[in-house]
Amino acid sequence: MAVLTIERKVLEKNDAVAQLNRQLLQSLGIFSLNFVSSPGSGKTSLVEKTIEYCRDRIKIAVIEGDVQTDLDARRVDALGVPVVQIVTHGACHLEALLIRDSLARLNLSAIELLIIENVGNLVCPASYDLGEDMKAVLVSITEGDDKPLKYPAMFRQASVMVVNKIDLLPHVPASLETLKKNALTINPQLKVFHTSCITGEGISEWCRWLESKIKKK
Amino acid sequence: MAVLTIERKVLEKNDAVAQLNRQLLQSLGIFSLNFVSSPGSGKTSLVEKTIEYCRDRIKIAVIEGDVQTDLDARRVDALGVPVVQIVTHGACHLEALLIRDSLARLNLSAIELLIIENVGNLVCPASYDLGEDMKAVLVSITEGDDKPLKYPAMFRQASVMVVNKIDLLPHVPASLETLKKNALTINPQLKVFHTSCITGEGISEWCRWLESKIKKK
Repeated sequence: MAVLTIERKVLEKNDAVAQLNRQLLQSLGIFSLNFVSSPGSGKTSLVEKTIEYCRDRIKIAVIEGDVQTDLDARRVDALGVPVVQIVTHGACHLEALLIRDSLARLNLSAIELLIIENVGNLVCPASYDLGEDMKAVLVSITEGDDKPLKYPAMFRQASVMVVNKIDLLPHVPASLETLKKNALTINPQLKVFHTSCITGEGISEWCRWLESKIKKK
Repeated sequence: MAVLTIERKVLEKNDAVAQLNRQLLQSLGIFSLNFVSSPGSGKTSLVEKTIEYCRDRIKIAVIEGDVQTDLDARRVDALGVPVVQIVTHGACHLEALLIRDSLARLNLSAIELLIIENVGNLVCPASYDLGEDMKAVLVSITEGDDKPLKYPAMFRQASVMVVNKIDLLPHVPASLETLKKNALTINPQLKVFHTSCITGEGISEWCRWLESKIKKK
């Protein structure tokens, strides 16, 4: 019981900081997205494609969360976009306070879209509000079509699902329709996109929707 | 600091129970494997293929760990092998006490190989000893070749790495050699297999190695 009480306090503190982050970001008109998925679903590749497609029209910054290494931040940095790398050194999710510290290192007046790439983990990040406008859950079609049923919390928390690596669909024993049906069973409000960072399929639909969320000042 | 102290106690308790599990399993000559990976790497498919290949020669039982649903246990049950489903209801890893309770539901005298399929999570299960003989980390080649560098704890803890979905190698921007090199950089002792549950490639090598671990009574 003592453990449960402390856990509740930790989450209360996280939620309070998340709320401050949200107020700050919204007051500056920054649309923020918390990108969550299993390891290797292609979060960083989709971030790269999003930057390439959108950067002439909107100002983007990225916060990269990783258990170890700054490999992802270097990929984003190569595209000339402001990026902060958070290395969690073993921790399985990002927390609001880490975002708070990252925001202090960015020039917020020059940002319209903030993408937070969470640690690759389909379980733990579901419990931690970072202050984002919405969570986008990414699923690679290669992971199979049952993931929303097996990891429901994340799909319930997300506003958007991006089914990635759609170019591999002909080669895997998974159905896009079943995946969508399972996801919508868990969360009927989920907006669904499908993308391939190899062929470019679906990237423009995804990016145009993202751009529609940006309130031009 | 209070939180850290309690966390240490929780892990101490887990480790003590894990040690009891290990003594029990080893005293009965049961070889036990803790299967860990990202969601959707193909753990259950590899368990199915392993059962199909090995069941005429060795007696297998399976403990399935899932955040939600008994979909995986039903797949194993369909093959006529004893299976216990653990549903963690949101928890991100299995713990030794859950294994202890599962062992109580199995006829241990009729088991030579126990496969524990952990929750799909490449971070948290690394910290929890279940009492297994070894951890086998599964990686789908579709997850990219950088995963050992980005999630090093799991690759350090594992004795074996199985690179799965190798049939997709021609279709993905990942190198099997780079993946192996990265994994061996983290853990030079790692034994490596590569498999496809679609084409059957590598299944016999994997299963023959597994069978070599079974001490015939």
